[in-house]
Amino acid sequence: MIRNRVDLAKVHRSFYPQVSVVIMVEANGHVGVMPAIWCMPLSFNPPLIGIALAPEHETCHMIRKTRAFTINWLDYSHARQVGELGEISGREFADKLAAVKLTTVKSKGNSQPLIQEASAVLECQVREERRTGTHELITGEVVEAYAADCFHDYWDFSKYNPLLYAGTEEKEGKSWRFLSIQRTTMRVPFKHEG
Amino acid sequence: MIRNRVDLAKVHRSFYPQVSVVIMVEANGHVGVMPAIWCMPLSFNPPLIGIALAPEHETCHMIRKTRAFTINWLDYSHARQVGELGEISGREFADKLAAVKLTTVKSKGNSQPLIQEASAVLECQVREERRTGTHELITGEVVEAYAADCFHDYWDFSKYNPLLYAGTEEKEGKSWRFLSIQRTTMRVPFKHEG
Repeated sequence: MIRNRVDLAKVHRSFYPQVSVVIMVEANGHVGVMPAIWCMPLSFNPPLIGIALAPEHETCHMIRKTRAFTINWLDYSHARQVGELGEISGREFADKLAAVKLTTVKSKGNSQPLIQEASAVLECQVREERRTGTHELITGEVVEAYAADCFHDYWDFSKYNPLLYAGTEEKEGKSWRFLSIQRTTMRVPFKHEG
Repeated sequence: MIRNRVDLAKVHRSFYPQVSVVIMVEANGHVGVMPAIWCMPLSFNPPLIGIALAPEHETCHMIRKTRAFTINWLDYSHARQVGELGEISGREFADKLAAVKLTTVKSKGNSQPLIQEASAVLECQVREERRTGTHELITGEVVEAYAADCFHDYWDFSKYNPLLYAGTEEKEGKSWRFLSIQRTTMRVPFKHEG
C-alpha cells in the first residue's frame, strides 16, 4: 500500500534489481570496460538497444568516438569481478579485464572486444546519441549476438544465474549489493490465448 | 563460454529477467493500463525515465495524448494479475484493474491513475517521444514518487519480492514466466573506497 513520499533523487532505485552488464569498446588500441545497468531493448526489428551512460566516463567517450561496442552478460558467479570492474579506472590498469582475471577476445562482427567468460554478448553499432539530463543515451543496433550453451531461444535458468544489481550499501563499509534468483520459476498460464 | 550465434530476432531475451511494471494513464475519463518491461532510468537530475512501448497499443496512444502517466511496481504476489493485465484489452473491460481485483486511485501530482496495491509508483510527465524501430521511446520526467513501507532509501527485499519477467513459454500451453529472488543477498565490499 502506497504511503510514503520518495525523494526524487532516489527514484532510480525503484527499478532495482536490474541485471548488470559489462560494456566494452576499443579505440586506438586502448580497451574501455565498465559495468552498466541502465540498458534495455528499444526495438525488435531492427534490433535496437538503448544504454544510458555517465558522459564523463572514459568508456562513454570511447563509444562515441568508435561508434561501436559490445554488451556482455556475466553470470552471478562473477559478481566480485563485476564489482571490481566498477571501481578500477582505465588509468590505473592497462588491462582492466586481466586485472580481475577475465579474458578479452575480439568479436567477429565489428572488431570490438568482448569477454570470453560471458554468458551472452551483443555487438552493437551506434545509431544515435543524445543527452538526457545527467546521462548520454546511446542507441545501438545489434549486428551480431552470441551466447553460451545456457541460452537457446531463452535463457536456461537452471544453468545461468543472472547477476542482479540492487545498489550499493553503506553499512559495515561500502559494498555492491547483488541478488540471486531462486532456481524455481513460476508459470502463469495464458487464459485467453493458445 | 561464448559458442553459439543468437538469432537477432531474439536478442531482447538476453536482457531477461527484467522487473515487470504496470503503466497507467487516463484520457477523457478512460483508463489505459498495460504491463511493460522496457523501462529504465535515463537521468538522476532531472529524474528522467525511458519507456519503450509498442505504438499500436491503446495505452501508448493515450500517453502521447495526455502527456502524463504512472509507473507502478507490483510485488511477485501479484504475478497472476500482471499476466492477466497483459492479456485483456481495454475494449473488453471498462475497468481492467477491477477485472483483476486491483484498485485504481488518483495520484496527487498529475491527476493520473495509480494502483493502490503497488509497492512503488512514479508519476511522470512526457518530455519527449520518438520512434526507435518497432517501438515508441517515451521520455518521462518523474514529478512525484511514492512507495509502500518496503522502500526506505532502498527496497527492503525481505519485504518486497520483485516480479521478474522471463518471457513467455509455449510448452504445456502458452504461459508467462516469472522468477523470484532468493531471500539472501550477496554483498561485495568495495576494495578501493570507503
